[in-house]
Amino acid sequence: MTDASEEPGLPQPETVTAAVLVIGDEILSGRTKEKNSGTIADHLTAIGINLREVRIVPDDETEIVDAVNALRARFHYVFTTGGIGPTHDDITADAIAKAFGVPIDVDPRAVAMMRERYRDTDLTPARMRMARIPEGAELIENPVSRAPGFMIGNVIVMAGVPRIMEAMLAEVTPSLRTGPRLMSVTIFVPSPESAVAPPLSETQKAFPDVRMGSYPHFEDGRPSVQLVLRAADGERLEDACRSLEARLSAAGLVPERLTQPDGS
Amino acid sequence: MTDASEEPGLPQPETVTAAVLVIGDEILSGRTKEKNSGTIADHLTAIGINLREVRIVPDDETEIVDAVNALRARFHYVFTTGGIGPTHDDITADAIAKAFGVPIDVDPRAVAMMRERYRDTDLTPARMRMARIPEGAELIENPVSRAPGFMIGNVIVMAGVPRIMEAMLAEVTPSLRTGPRLMSVTIFVPSPESAVAPPLSETQKAFPDVRMGSYPHFEDGRPSVQLVLRAADGERLEDACRSLEARLSAAGLVPERLTQPDGS
Repeated sequence: MTDASEEPGLPQPETVTAAVLVIGDEILSGRTKEKNSGTIADHLTAIGINLREVRIVPDDETEIVDAVNALRARFHYVFTTGGIGPTHDDITADAIAKAFGVPIDVDPRAVAMMRERYRDTDLTPARMRMARIPEGAELIENPVSRAPGFMIGNVIVMAGVPRIMEAMLAEVTPSLRTGPRLMSVTIFVPSPESAVAPPLSETQKAFPDVRMGSYPHFEDGRPSVQLVLRAADGERLEDACRSLEARLSAAGLVPERLTQPDGS
Repeated sequence: MTDASEEPGLPQPETVTAAVLVIGDEILSGRTKEKNSGTIADHLTAIGINLREVRIVPDDETEIVDAVNALRARFHYVFTTGGIGPTHDDITADAIAKAFGVPIDVDPRAVAMMRERYRDTDLTPARMRMARIPEGAELIENPVSRAPGFMIGNVIVMAGVPRIMEAMLAEVTPSLRTGPRLMSVTIFVPSPESAVAPPLSETQKAFPDVRMGSYPHFEDGRPSVQLVLRAADGERLEDACRSLEARLSAAGLVPERLTQPDGS
């Protein structure tokens, strides 16, 4: 760890928040099962950005504009996926320009990127549609199929195809501000959730700064529960885990740690 | 087909809309990959309800209240999942009561349902927490683990555990108003999306009442695209498909139908 936030004596870094906005009729009809938001959630947690909301909206300009403007006002970053391809239903770039109140036109930088893959004769009007970028946006390179994503203000606009989305997310990551990374510990208890509720609730009251979640599971009719504790401070997290384990054991339950704070 | 909406001469039924609200920190941290919203999307499409938005919010009362109130004002139905278990982080029922401005207390009907599974001595305070229901709500039976979901106004509150959610969704379905079912056809084209864009766009202009989406795919570096056409009127859908296929063929492309309007 070499980043400044880890040096003793410096003020604690501010929490950085984000929302994901998924755009596409095919998700809402059930035809396509959406996986990008889970990928982005994992990535943001790993780099120290706190994902606070996900929205999925249809390919409808008003819906996209309203969602972008609501989310960009509330969170440090908004990550959008979908709707930046070459067909008539790809309206994300135009909707983002409208949300920001800026013009949109073919961007020579985007055309230059696409020329790395396409001959001039292959730069058809449909493909040139993918070079339309709102004024003032920074481009995000697309190493897979070249047509770029972009970032305007605090909004990061990425493709919906998972492999391209992942490449764009990696490209944009070095330019993102991040906050404290939350560490987590998972404790397994082979008992019904209602049995762990009292010791969990007592521990939560004693450690209000550690987030504690309870996730029940049923297999072959046998209930069990995973308890997940999360905090930015590793020592505090360990103290909370030991306190919870002691309370669970005192209640006759048998807690078992599945993961340690460092992810092992 | 025996429902009135299929009889000739009757006015076309109104579109019925819905939103899904997923509640849970574990989704936003990436720890749990959310699948309930895709299951609900498939189900609503099949029964003739138009899913228009999905939101995922954390276990935070203000966030839940704001999302419930925003969504229930805009859509015919709101389906929530998650946060109705026995632990301190299960705050959905209280948040729903707050959103509707009604009191919440242990509901004797819910206790009666839970007595089918639990002896009185097993109805601990933690389990009794699951019998807290906002005033004025109708209960939704839970054949898996008994603790019920509920419906208040146009908001349907279900568990987050997928098997229980699916059982509650089946329970509540007969009481839901539905609209016209959209039929869909999928056409595969083994070409880049940019090549299908012009014929697709022309066909969309000729059939503005048929929704047309384009979903690109890359495998082993070879691009292909699936075109999905959706409409409530089967004949109109078939006309649009034939028109699109003719335009694709005229452009030198090779369309192949993957599914028919009846889903075969």
